[in-house]
Amino acid sequence: MTDYQKVIDRIYHTVGPMWPQAKPADYIPALAQADPSSYGIAINTLGGDTFSVGDSHVPFSIQSISKVFTFAMVARHLGDRIWESVGREPSGNPFNSLVQLEYEHGRPRNPFINAGALVVTDRLIDLYPRPKEAILDFVRSLSGNPDIYFDTAIARSERATANRNMALAYLMKSFGNIHNDVETLIDVYCSQCAISMSCVDLARSFLFLANRGVNPLAPGGPERILTPSQAKRLGAVMLTCGFYDESGDFAFRVGLPGKSGVGGGIAAYMPGNLAIAVWCPGLNSYGNSLLGIETLERFTTDIGNSIF
Amino acid sequence: MTDYQKVIDRIYHTVGPMWPQAKPADYIPALAQADPSSYGIAINTLGGDTFSVGDSHVPFSIQSISKVFTFAMVARHLGDRIWESVGREPSGNPFNSLVQLEYEHGRPRNPFINAGALVVTDRLIDLYPRPKEAILDFVRSLSGNPDIYFDTAIARSERATANRNMALAYLMKSFGNIHNDVETLIDVYCSQCAISMSCVDLARSFLFLANRGVNPLAPGGPERILTPSQAKRLGAVMLTCGFYDESGDFAFRVGLPGKSGVGGGIAAYMPGNLAIAVWCPGLNSYGNSLLGIETLERFTTDIGNSIF
Amino acid sequence: MTDYQKVIDRIYHTVGPMWPQAKPADYIPALAQADPSSYGIAINTLGGDTFSVGDSHVPFSIQSISKVFTFAMVARHLGDRIWESVGREPSGNPFNSLVQLEYEHGRPRNPFINAGALVVTDRLIDLYPRPKEAILDFVRSLSGNPDIYFDTAIARSERATANRNMALAYLMKSFGNIHNDVETLIDVYCSQCAISMSCVDLARSFLFLANRGVNPLAPGGPERILTPSQAKRLGAVMLTCGFYDESGDFAFRVGLPGKSGVGGGIAAYMPGNLAIAVWCPGLNSYGNSLLGIETLERFTTDIGNSIF
Amino acid sequence: MTDYQKVIDRIYHTVGPMWPQAKPADYIPALAQADPSSYGIAINTLGGDTFSVGDSHVPFSIQSISKVFTFAMVARHLGDRIWESVGREPSGNPFNSLVQLEYEHGRPRNPFINAGALVVTDRLIDLYPRPKEAILDFVRSLSGNPDIYFDTAIARSERATANRNMALAYLMKSFGNIHNDVETLIDVYCSQCAISMSCVDLARSFLFLANRGVNPLAPGGPERILTPSQAKRLGAVMLTCGFYDESGDFAFRVGLPGKSGVGGGIAAYMPGNLAIAVWCPGLNSYGNSLLGIETLERFTTDIGNSIF
Repeated sequence: MTDYQKVIDRIYHTVGPMWPQAKPADYIPALAQADPSSYGIAINTLGGDTFSVGDSHVPFSIQSISKVFTFAMVARHLGDRIWESVGREPSGNPFNSLVQLEYEHGRPRNPFINAGALVVTDRLIDLYPRPKEAILDFVRSLSGNPDIYFDTAIARSERATANRNMALAYLMKSFGNIHNDVETLIDVYCSQCAISMSCVDLARSFLFLANRGVNPLAPGGPERILTPSQAKRLGAVMLTCGFYDESGDFAFRVGLPGKSGVGGGIAAYMPGNLAIAVWCPGLNSYGNSLLGIETLERFTTDIGNSIF
Repeated sequence: MTDYQKVIDRIYHTVGPMWPQAKPADYIPALAQADPSSYGIAINTLGGDTFSVGDSHVPFSIQSISKVFTFAMVARHLGDRIWESVGREPSGNPFNSLVQLEYEHGRPRNPFINAGALVVTDRLIDLYPRPKEAILDFVRSLSGNPDIYFDTAIARSERATANRNMALAYLMKSFGNIHNDVETLIDVYCSQCAISMSCVDLARSFLFLANRGVNPLAPGGPERILTPSQAKRLGAVMLTCGFYDESGDFAFRVGLPGKSGVGGGIAAYMPGNLAIAVWCPGLNSYGNSLLGIETLERFTTDIGNSIF
Repeated sequence: MTDYQKVIDRIYHTVGPMWPQAKPADYIPALAQADPSSYGIAINTLGGDTFSVGDSHVPFSIQSISKVFTFAMVARHLGDRIWESVGREPSGNPFNSLVQLEYEHGRPRNPFINAGALVVTDRLIDLYPRPKEAILDFVRSLSGNPDIYFDTAIARSERATANRNMALAYLMKSFGNIHNDVETLIDVYCSQCAISMSCVDLARSFLFLANRGVNPLAPGGPERILTPSQAKRLGAVMLTCGFYDESGDFAFRVGLPGKSGVGGGIAAYMPGNLAIAVWCPGLNSYGNSLLGIETLERFTTDIGNSIF
Repeated sequence: MTDYQKVIDRIYHTVGPMWPQAKPADYIPALAQADPSSYGIAINTLGGDTFSVGDSHVPFSIQSISKVFTFAMVARHLGDRIWESVGREPSGNPFNSLVQLEYEHGRPRNPFINAGALVVTDRLIDLYPRPKEAILDFVRSLSGNPDIYFDTAIARSERATANRNMALAYLMKSFGNIHNDVETLIDVYCSQCAISMSCVDLARSFLFLANRGVNPLAPGGPERILTPSQAKRLGAVMLTCGFYDESGDFAFRVGLPGKSGVGGGIAAYMPGNLAIAVWCPGLNSYGNSLLGIETLERFTTDIGNSIF
């Protein structure tokens, strides 16, 4: 049996010293203040074990990882109807491009590019009368941590630099694919991106994906979040679209479904087995955590296992 | 000497019956109510003569023709500095495309596509404390008609369907090329598009362009609006960019600098000679007045003169 | 233990009657002559069992499935250097688009779009003095079938309609990414596409991919074709890029790495388990076998297993 | 009356010293050998006068200026039918882009981008049994110079670096818009680009365009080359499309219809008045002669006349 603690300890000490090679995101002032030497890893297995190393209990801004949570919240209500509004093909373009959106008449290519995530959050606003509270409830329940909150300084900072997301939202509204007021939508969206969670929180929150849609640690006993088929399909979309224009490369190097955020976090999972989260703020040229990807590549290589 | 009255009378009677072939713009409800059989032509010569036929005194919504007026208002203040914010190359794309804007980092290709006109109006707001009044003053002075107003029903209708222009403005704001609040900008822009003028008003307003920058009919005597060089250059931009994706074709068929609007108006001029305006609401597939272009093509063919 | 024969029999009888819904490829005259009601399925397990139903022994034109074979032939020689000439990101565009190729200076996005496959075959010509014979030897050895040949009528038909591939090759040559004479390259490429194999041949040929790079059935005993890491990575590229602009959807619906061809064939595999091939000539709008995808989706659903 | 000799002498001495600011084209080795300090200007008026200064009698490679001649040769036979195969809109993209060609199904935007010129030469091959001789005859007749030849060293050099033009031709052939063998087409095309003419030859050859389609200096007396309408329309296309992605800027700064070549030549004309040619090999970033454009801008400014 694999000794996961040993594996992540070894990776932590090998990869850790590389952090000066990459800089945190700077387009949002509040994110640029992250300590670039922060580095943590956490694993939760379906067997109930937790392993962690480094800054694995320090909360950070999950940013685009939140797109997985809002998607799950909407998909469990809408089922396959969600695919009428958003596609499931890789975008083949930098993560906030407007080009393909225009060619394809306001239907984003997938739910993990910004345009697609805006459509998903717009539907969430349709479905939940108090959308921000609903999002917090959902991630608190998945992670078992009632102290998860929005980082309001980051949310404000994000709101002040949201011109491009405003442009995306108005463009889709011109095609009829945004239903709600754009100001309201951007407010909810900037809040969801500003959720603060630790690696331990995230690994636990992704466990339902490794477990065919059932959260094994829900307070009242195992709770079905998605059907097995929905969970499998969400995994496929994460694998092909979860890392912006580096998705193919992540599948190639790591071979796990996952999702990254510009806060430097990555959460991923091995179906039927475990969930893993990494955090280190320095980003590569694609906007993904440099050490995060390095960590996960070494992880699947070390344990000799991936989905391929 | 050419008998312009005879020429436009003949064209009017030949071209007029074609109006059922084209439909007015319908994306703004208020524009769709235009009487499709309206048709007027007016000419003003530098010699001081006026010729007109048909509905040449009926005011209509000038829409994008207003882009020439706001450009002149800004260019006389900023001179060549305006070209730092907007290019002067044809767009090679439908008139409201976001594609090139993104590739070129928020600098629109020319001042006559919507994105470029928004930048120009944004600068106008920088320069004039009361921008809407300033625009009205300018067109009233050029046309000698103090009764020109905004059609507020159309301005409101336009404002309600401005999602795509909002998207353009926020995208350019994300690149730093819009200075003012987007809501304010769109409000001024929708008003300028909703100016009501007749063919007679428009022909007279374009006379300064035919006259190397000097309005010959200003109340206090000839008034310089633009330098000869600015006037020549504005003409070149109108010729290459004035008719959306049909600009090359307009140069080819008509051979005059001019500008069209989706209200069905076209204003054009022959340098050193005359200005001409046509109006008929039915549009061709490029969003230009079908009869307007037909009229102008016959006009330059009949008089055997164009800039080529 | 899953009774694979029962599973594919059931699918065969349920899906088979759907064939009139789709038409074979018609851009190559010789392909258009395929019998649209042909339908076969074959499975080879790592345990050594073979299951098949329908037209599973009838040879057909494997077309783009050949790209997997030529890639493996080149990758085993060049290792990671192959990625200097071709990327591994999904294309986000129809399968023979020139657009992205130009934006990215002649480096195709992945080895499974036509441009990428041309680069791979160009390298194969660098490496093998008699490239066509080498390709035949390779697929004969993998499949254990010495009677596999090129269908010369199809190769000729393909050669006569290769203008677009000629354009791709010359464009990449202008960027220095094609080394050999374009006529020679297209000749080899059209031959590889015209290889005739049956479902049984294909399933057996894909077994080395399910077996971490080792062909378990080679005549002289197990033979390593690719390293485990190369095999895993080729699988990731197949999953994200193997089905043109439908790759994301294939991952979503089926959840297996695989490759399709316009001849109506699809070969796929479940790592550590089995390889499967399907053939039915009628194509969907993306150029993939309509019944082939339906078959594989039902297969992973029925056995309750995929890589996700 | 304007003293043209004085005007061009003054410009020659002011602009000439700027030549070290720009480098000749280097993508064709034979062009890179041009003497970068060469500089000549020639004018021919409809009144029969010739003015010239500098290297105005030195032959140079006319390159893309030849597109005007082949277009005229084809247009006089096909009339408006030529526009079925090629458009007349500016391209809005660098001069050899494949992007728009693919979006618009193999129909080039205008006859002056490479793709459009290839279509025109393809039609010329349809019309003239000995196309290369026919081209030479045509330019010899227009210029009155029987000693004009192809520079075979340049033609060969061009042929050896024609991969991108081969790609364009095969792409259009895949859409059915090239009729002849691509190798033959490229051979004729590379020859026409390699025609050697001096400024004096070129100014005289463009006189028919300034003269409503009639060559006033033909040996047997005035000869109609194009109808007045064809001549006017060709002028409009030159103005909007004659300078690649700098066409709008050329209209803006110079205000004359014209055509440039990467050999550093520019030929232009003022309708009803004169033709002018300039040559200086150093190019700006758009591939147009830096001193050529500067010369023409000063020319129209000095004489206070342009088409605007």
